Amino acid sequence: MSRHLMTQFDTDLQEIRTMLLEMGGKVEKMITDAMKSLVERDSLLAMTTIDYDHEINRLEVEIDERCLEVLALRQPTARDLRFVTLALKIVTDLERIGDQCRNIAKRAQELNELPPLKPYIDLPRMASIAANMVTEALDAFVRGDDQLAYAVCRRDDEVDLLNEQIQRELLTYMIEDSASITRGIKITAIAKCLERVADHATNVAEMVIFMVKGKDIRHLGCDA
Amino acid sequence: MSRHLMTQFDTDLQEIRTMLLEMGGKVEKMITDAMKSLVERDSLLAMTTIDYDHEINRLEVEIDERCLEVLALRQPTARDLRFVTLALKIVTDLERIGDQCRNIAKRAQELNELPPLKPYIDLPRMASIAANMVTEALDAFVRGDDQLAYAVCRRDDEVDLLNEQIQRELLTYMIEDSASITRGIKITAIAKCLERVADHATNVAEMVIFMVKGKDIRHLGCDA
Repeated sequence: MSRHLMTQFDTDLQEIRTMLLEMGGKVEKMITDAMKSLVERDSLLAMTTIDYDHEINRLEVEIDERCLEVLALRQPTARDLRFVTLALKIVTDLERIGDQCRNIAKRAQELNELPPLKPYIDLPRMASIAANMVTEALDAFVRGDDQLAYAVCRRDDEVDLLNEQIQRELLTYMIEDSASITRGIKITAIAKCLERVADHATNVAEMVIFMVKGKDIRHLGCDA
Repeated sequence: MSRHLMTQFDTDLQEIRTMLLEMGGKVEKMITDAMKSLVERDSLLAMTTIDYDHEINRLEVEIDERCLEVLALRQPTARDLRFVTLALKIVTDLERIGDQCRNIAKRAQELNELPPLKPYIDLPRMASIAANMVTEALDAFVRGDDQLAYAVCRRDDEVDLLNEQIQRELLTYMIEDSASITRGIKITAIAKCLERVADHATNVAEMVIFMVKGKDIRHLGCDA
């Protein structure tokens, strides 16, 4: 391979990295905005967030196409091949996080039409951890940093615990006052969406660990 | 490309198809077994199902590696490249379905230690639809059949409705008798797992539609 081709190839990989980070940044914003539309009862922001999912979907198609081009034209092997195919998988997780944010914003719209049930305290915490996990999982990918990826995996337990706590607390509300059931179910659904966002970030982190460490570590998960 | 290489390449693609269908068959069995371990209160089967997840994980790594080999050695382009990269994405969905089944089996073990709350009627229906969706989504992939893929997407609504119905029904139980809360939450979690299985099947079906129809249809979902 000529020096020229090597350089062009490096540029291609760098471009994929940049596109993924851009998509990650937009997904992170979507998580934050979806939560803000709920906490601040801002249904206009909820609508903007729902619309914004198109932008995430557009980026998914664009990055996918770029990866396919690189595979077809540059025919990468070994580590580079793993990088590009992993980028293809990661972009799917990012797109699905976008779907979860759209779901959160839809529930927020519905909840904003009803009287407030209680102040949101744990949900914004959960959202902020989940958004952070997404950013760090992507950083771990572009840097090939398995230690950071392990750290992301460990935070997933924190999110799961918060989710369980929220579920139990809302159940108490719903048992005490059946008028709160509709709202309770909607808030429960939002917590589940955030749990899934964190799951996607964890999935990305696990794939990064596999990319860095090789196949033996895969499916040993974060305890390894 | 020589005739010999063409033939070898066709064999490679056929092998990936066969491996994916094998993995799909095993995932379908895992869904069925996880549900059976709950309905028949068979904790031994639940344990076997949890263990079986290793087999699914092994297949994921194996198919991934095979796809990478084909990409590196055969350097497919156009439609074949799309097929292989899509196989890489689908295998991730199948593996995550395995994770959901493991979660169901774990909850089944816990529920089998407690007195029965109510007969399971909607959950096995949900499981059977979800298992069927997985099989059909894979069939749609290997045959490149977008009509079948659309049919899979449409069934997702059925699963979502069943899930909502189960959530509401269990809530009624939990409100009427607080002694049922622990069991109610566990059964609710199982319904959620099945909903996620169906979501993964739908994701696969949507990607198949994209593969067959091209990018314009993507993210228009199943209404297109």
